[in-house]
Order: sequence, then C-alpha cells, then structure tokens
Amino acid sequence: MQFGLGSVTEALGNLSGLLHNKEITFNSDVAQTDTFLADAEVLVVSNPVDLSDLATRAPALKWVHVMSAGVEKVVADIPPGVLLTNVKGAHADRAGEFGITAILMLNNRIPAFATQQQNRIWQQSPQSVVMGKTVTILGLGALGGATARFAKLFGMHVVGVTRTGRPHEHADEVHRLDEVGPLLERTDFLVIALPLTPETDGLLTRALLDRLPAHAGLLNIGRANVLDHDALVEKLKDGSLSGAVLDVFLEEPLPAASELWSTPNLFITPHNGLDDPGDFGRKCLEIFASNLAAYSSGRPLLTQVDLEAGY
Amino acid sequence: MQFGLGSVTEALGNLSGLLHNKEITFNSDVAQTDTFLADAEVLVVSNPVDLSDLATRAPALKWVHVMSAGVEKVVADIPPGVLLTNVKGAHADRAGEFGITAILMLNNRIPAFATQQQNRIWQQSPQSVVMGKTVTILGLGALGGATARFAKLFGMHVVGVTRTGRPHEHADEVHRLDEVGPLLERTDFLVIALPLTPETDGLLTRALLDRLPAHAGLLNIGRANVLDHDALVEKLKDGSLSGAVLDVFLEEPLPAASELWSTPNLFITPHNGLDDPGDFGRKCLEIFASNLAAYSSGRPLLTQVDLEAGY
Repeated sequence: MQFGLGSVTEALGNLSGLLHNKEITFNSDVAQTDTFLADAEVLVVSNPVDLSDLATRAPALKWVHVMSAGVEKVVADIPPGVLLTNVKGAHADRAGEFGITAILMLNNRIPAFATQQQNRIWQQSPQSVVMGKTVTILGLGALGGATARFAKLFGMHVVGVTRTGRPHEHADEVHRLDEVGPLLERTDFLVIALPLTPETDGLLTRALLDRLPAHAGLLNIGRANVLDHDALVEKLKDGSLSGAVLDVFLEEPLPAASELWSTPNLFITPHNGLDDPGDFGRKCLEIFASNLAAYSSGRPLLTQVDLEAGY
Repeated sequence: MQFGLGSVTEALGNLSGLLHNKEITFNSDVAQTDTFLADAEVLVVSNPVDLSDLATRAPALKWVHVMSAGVEKVVADIPPGVLLTNVKGAHADRAGEFGITAILMLNNRIPAFATQQQNRIWQQSPQSVVMGKTVTILGLGALGGATARFAKLFGMHVVGVTRTGRPHEHADEVHRLDEVGPLLERTDFLVIALPLTPETDGLLTRALLDRLPAHAGLLNIGRANVLDHDALVEKLKDGSLSGAVLDVFLEEPLPAASELWSTPNLFITPHNGLDDPGDFGRKCLEIFASNLAAYSSGRPLLTQVDLEAGY
C-alpha cells in the first residue's frame, strides 16, 4: 500500500488491525512512487500524484481510494477491473450548511452589500423571506442533497436536477440535466453542486445563464469548469443577475490578477465550504476504514465511484 | 385621528368600517399637526413628529400607535393614562431569517472573507458546523425570539438574556441582563436584539466585550446605542474578536466618513433586516387593524408598550 496523506498518515497506521498480515507503507516522495506502486494492492491517494499507466506500473493493484470527493483528475487513469472509491459524504454536513448560508446571503443581498461597503454606499434593499422561493440545485449528491435538506427547513421550493432525474427525499421535484433550461426561468437561486464529468463540463453556458431571472442569485460549490465565468462576470456587471457566491475556481488559489476579485455583487470564498481539518480528516478515515473493512471481507465498497458516470 | 403614513395611507382608509362614526384624518404637514391633535382620540405615527406636551396639545388623546418596533423616541412623551402600541412582531419572520443568516455568515467567516476579497487575499479558514455551538441572544422579543427559533433548527445551544430571565420556548436557558458577564465567556456568537431603554443604553461596554472568546462573532440587529462601537472596532482590528455584522448604527445612513466602513472583519448591512415594503406595510396594517378592533370593543390592545419598561 502507498499513502501520501500528510496529517492523517499516523491515524491510518491505526487501521492496521484490519489488514491482517498485509504491509502498510507511506510515501510522499514522488521519485519513489514507482517503487511503492510495483507491489501495491490498495493505493490511497491524498495529494496529486501521476497515476498514468497504472496497469503496467502497479500490476497487483485492485483498489484506489482518493481522499477527496472529486475524482475528475484520476477517473480516466483507473485501469479496467480496479475499484475506485472517494470520500463522498465527508463534506456533507458542512457543505449543506455552507450551501444554505450562501442561499440566505443571496436572498439578503450580501454580495451587493459587500460591494457597497467597499464604496461606502448606504443603499437599502429590502427583501421578502426565502420561504416559498425556488432554489434549483444542480446535482443532488452529498453536497447538493445536504443543501436541499436545509432549504426545505426554510420552507423553500426545491428543484433538483440530476443525471437520472430520480426522486430525492429533500426535493419537491427532480429533473434530468438535459431539461435544465426551462427550470432556470422559474429559479430564484441556482446552486451548482455537480461533479465535473464530460456531461457537466461547460454545462452552464451564457445562453443558459440568460434564462435566469434578473433577480436570481447563483452559488457554485461544485466544480468551476461547469460554469462560464466570463458570462457570469458580464451578467453581474450589467445587472442581469443580482448576485453570486463562488467557492470554487478554475485556478486555486485564485490569482491576485483575476477580475473575479473585483466583480460587483460577486462574493468570493476561498474553497471554504469544507470541514475544519480535524473533523474532515476524521470523517475521511471513517469512510476509508469502512471501505477497508468491506474490502477485507469481500463486501461491496461504500463510496465506490461509477467509472462510466465519472462520479 | 392623525396619520402621517406615506404609502400605507390609502390602505388605512379601508379600516374605516371599524370606526363606526368616527372621522379618520390624514396629515403629513408638520405645520398642521396641532390642528389635528386638538381633537384626536387616536394618533397613528409613522414619520418622526414632535410629540412633546401631548397632554395640553391633544387633551382627548387615548391611544398612540407607532408604525415601528422601536419606541425609544416617543415613550417619554406619552402622557399618563394614554395607551402606546407599536408594530412589534411585524419584522419577526424577516428578522429571524436575517439573524440566522448573520450567525451562519459569522460561522463561515464571511466578514473576514469580505476583507480578504478587497485585498485579493486567498486564505482558507475551515470551520466546523454551527450545530452544538452557543449563541447568546440579548433580548428575546420578536427579533431575538425569531432568531432563537432558527438557531434551534440548526441544533445550536441558545442562551437568552432578558430583563426578567423568564423561560422562552426557543431558548435552552434564559438569564437576566445583570447576569450577562459570565455568559459571554462561553459564547460563540453574540446577537444583540435589545430595545433601547435606560437599562440597555451602553450595556455592552468594552469590559463586557472583552469577556467574549477571540473566536466569537457579534451581530447587532437591535439598537446601535447598546454597543460600544469604538471598543468593537479595536477588537476587530487586534483580532480579539473574529468578526461582526452590524445592521444598525448610531447615525443612519452611516456617514461615508465612518471608520466602520473599512474596519476589517466587520460586515455592514444598511439596516436591512427588515421586510420588503409591501409585505411590511401589510403586516403593520394587520397589527393596527387588530388593535383597532380590540380598541373599538374595549379589549386589551395586542402590542401595547409597557411605558415603565420602555418597550
């Protein structure tokens, strides 16, 4: 086994009881990767690492576990027959709270007030409550589902949009991704909580964003590549969208030169819709330990990624 | 009767059915005030007006109704034996939503991120969820009570502080105002939702603010005079308080020269924890209509102010 786990390395050592006679090895030296891969059966990845040509470099490999929710950077490298798991769900409580925080911020015109504060402008903007307003959530996985749950607590009308369109316990209606256009026209708040897949990459084009009402607000807690940022900036500047909160960016940290920093009515959070480090590490370990127990006894893994769907 | 009601004047005319043969008069000309006062039995006030010496100027006066929640500017002018009512509760749903929005913003370090965004600084600050954290709410009237209700929805520990210390359905514990000091030491979020009275004026001194933990956040949706703003600014600058959201100010609109605009980790909202005008007007009218029906039939008024307590 190979680990590149930073702060959780030690804690993982405590899982050795689940491993019977197998060896746990830890590696954070990129130059040594192939030595460890050569006889690895299970590979746990927390930091970016070159996973190309795994079939040749890691012939004994049966399972890759990544310590993140997004798998778009590794999914194409997983050889046929090798299992891939992630830590989907580890962010859920936190992401749900961040999701509803941002929805409430948008309803309370917080992005606009941030812009006003910079310019020392006092301009009231009274709003009615979120109750009864419509939030459209793209993606009802762990992040989107948790946001939906909080939105229902506030009496919002929750429209979910997913690949399958299957019903969801916290959504009033669920539609397929290819049906999103007309839904946007009756959306007060659009929440992007999609994984990055070929189907979602570039999904929110300018034409789709133009179907949102001018009073609508937008939140992205999923992946940046889903959204046309140039169109978003223009719409915030010309007032055809009232506000936005972005937590994810094409390049992170967001470069100091990015125009997003100074776009009016756009509130930037630094990919912060995540748990505090201690708590997130604990949840990731719990998920890995559950998977490891399942793996050791031949049961299905709990957070297995569908390599075809890409999440 | 005299009204100075702006946009709700017309709608009030529809209440005349409750008035039997009494005359409704409207006035927004300050020079005419005494003419109207001379034979007024009920006085409805929405705009600031000179209410000094009412006993002489309005000898028939039995009831003054103000179209605001705060009564600190009129309470001393109400003659003995004259009833005073306000529109307490009209803001409640909206204020509760604004209250929980600000608490979630503080937990998510939004005031700090606003400061960082101005300086194009990417600095993550992962936080655990609000569940289980302690919010201390000063004042459990309509605003504080509605905030408490939402805080319980998020699984927070709610400490209420009121004049009487009486139990409240949405608070886990309630204490008296003179017991606030030790409570602050175990407070994660302090919400000021107090009316302005001689007892609350200047209540939150520097010494009391210093008892808050450095990680704590502060929200004022009550009255500005309750809080030492100089101490608040210093604490936000020196990091002995992590963030604040202010919705109320000593002078409104907040002057462009105020240092509050540029105080780090301080988020300014322009007294915006209020309903949209249409909805607020409707609620105010509902409250006045209910009071008028009670008055007409000799029942107790619903939002009567305790002239002694001042709210």
